[in-house]
Amino acid sequence: MKVKLTIEYNGSAFVGWQEQSNGVGVQNSLGSALHVYLNSLLKRSGLDLLESAPTISGSGRTDSGVHALGQVASFEWPEALPFDADAMTTALNGILPREIALQHASAVEDNFDARITKHRKQYSYYFVLRKASEGYFLGRAWRVPATIDIPAMCKAARLLVGNKDFASFRAADCVAKSSVRTLHVCELTRESEHLLRLVVQGNGFLKQMIRIIAGTLLEVGKGQIAPEEIERILDSRSRQNAGKTAPACGLVLDWVSYDQQFRDRNKPEEMRLS
Amino acid sequence: MKVKLTIEYNGSAFVGWQEQSNGVGVQNSLGSALHVYLNSLLKRSGLDLLESAPTISGSGRTDSGVHALGQVASFEWPEALPFDADAMTTALNGILPREIALQHASAVEDNFDARITKHRKQYSYYFVLRKASEGYFLGRAWRVPATIDIPAMCKAARLLVGNKDFASFRAADCVAKSSVRTLHVCELTRESEHLLRLVVQGNGFLKQMIRIIAGTLLEVGKGQIAPEEIERILDSRSRQNAGKTAPACGLVLDWVSYDQQFRDRNKPEEMRLS
Repeated sequence: MKVKLTIEYNGSAFVGWQEQSNGVGVQNSLGSALHVYLNSLLKRSGLDLLESAPTISGSGRTDSGVHALGQVASFEWPEALPFDADAMTTALNGILPREIALQHASAVEDNFDARITKHRKQYSYYFVLRKASEGYFLGRAWRVPATIDIPAMCKAARLLVGNKDFASFRAADCVAKSSVRTLHVCELTRESEHLLRLVVQGNGFLKQMIRIIAGTLLEVGKGQIAPEEIERILDSRSRQNAGKTAPACGLVLDWVSYDQQFRDRNKPEEMRLS
Repeated sequence: MKVKLTIEYNGSAFVGWQEQSNGVGVQNSLGSALHVYLNSLLKRSGLDLLESAPTISGSGRTDSGVHALGQVASFEWPEALPFDADAMTTALNGILPREIALQHASAVEDNFDARITKHRKQYSYYFVLRKASEGYFLGRAWRVPATIDIPAMCKAARLLVGNKDFASFRAADCVAKSSVRTLHVCELTRESEHLLRLVVQGNGFLKQMIRIIAGTLLEVGKGQIAPEEIERILDSRSRQNAGKTAPACGLVLDWVSYDQQFRDRNKPEEMRLS
């Protein structure tokens, strides 16, 4: 049996999803907490303890500073133990750093894997529009000039929707075999006077893809790239034709949604796809 | 001539608007930055320097940990100096801590005072609805059970709108002579699956009034106070009949709007009252 976890975190407190030599990753914090919890259950049942933390599979890696409202991860539940989702959620939230919230846990099929199982994801990228410093939005948005041309950015964003080769929109060291991905949604919404939000939905993303999209859209907003040029940038399949990579702090992983066949056993209505 | 400032800040970084023995206040940070800036201008003009920071009047004090998107403050501009709003905004944002953003500065009438001049204000109080820890919302919302009765809270909130005596909804050490205030708006809106927002608009607030309203509404949501009881709580004029004071972190001062006669000289359309 696998266990599926839905996790929220403030990325400012971590070096990203994966552990790095320079600090703690979310995956690592989660693994340590699970290790403590599972061993407490195993000890109580007089069973052998786990020597190391369980292997946790995340739907994808988030970069250092990137936030998540609904990251999904999975791990193998020890066969010998009974599973109690509520007890586990309460216990883990008591052990985890306050910047990580375990929203939901459920038992799922053996063949579920948060990374491999087909899914759709939504990310949001936040821009704070002004000359002044970040203030309230520090660590949560990218500060850009208030004078940017938002309609031009909307036009450019629409040209990224569909099944396309995003080779121009991936980090130079991205190791994915294919750079073809499908974007279902790529649109800008004005959240408030000072806040602009880019919403991107897709079936998978290349390394730094959304941050490069955000950086490219900003260059469109500044008049440095014409909206129509997006098509030529895509066709060129060259990273150097797209814009700069936007900083991580503006990015939030909103949710990850899995195929019907992998719906939670105990929460059949949980799907969040609209 | 007075200068009117619109300021945003992340309250987590300060002990509140006013300086305290245990840390730095926003007013104090702003005063120090203004002192540096004004003296640089005075020095350049060969004029006498200011010995101390200018006296800054804020529309109201925010408690330690309370945030502001649009706090307003005013100070007396040194007569001998020409005033350049853009130059001052750029310079101050370069000196201020990144958690404070000076949004806007303008020259206003001599008799304007951010605290005394008649104004209307909007505050929002954010609740994060769940058992799990605060995660992404750490320092920005109050964590409450997801099972609270929101329709009952809405009903109770409506009973607080109007010109009423809020003696039951002020801190024990509140020194305001009259406890009568007018609430123009007091309503709850669901921002997202996990976020509930209380919006309160009024012509002035007693000490901790909104935090006590938020705490009382939560007790309504938990079924500990019936919505209709709000009227009896108001009538009792006794702090002990209202609910607990909600934590500061959930509170944001959204905006302050002044009478038409005090509209900015250079921004006649700036009014944000709807």
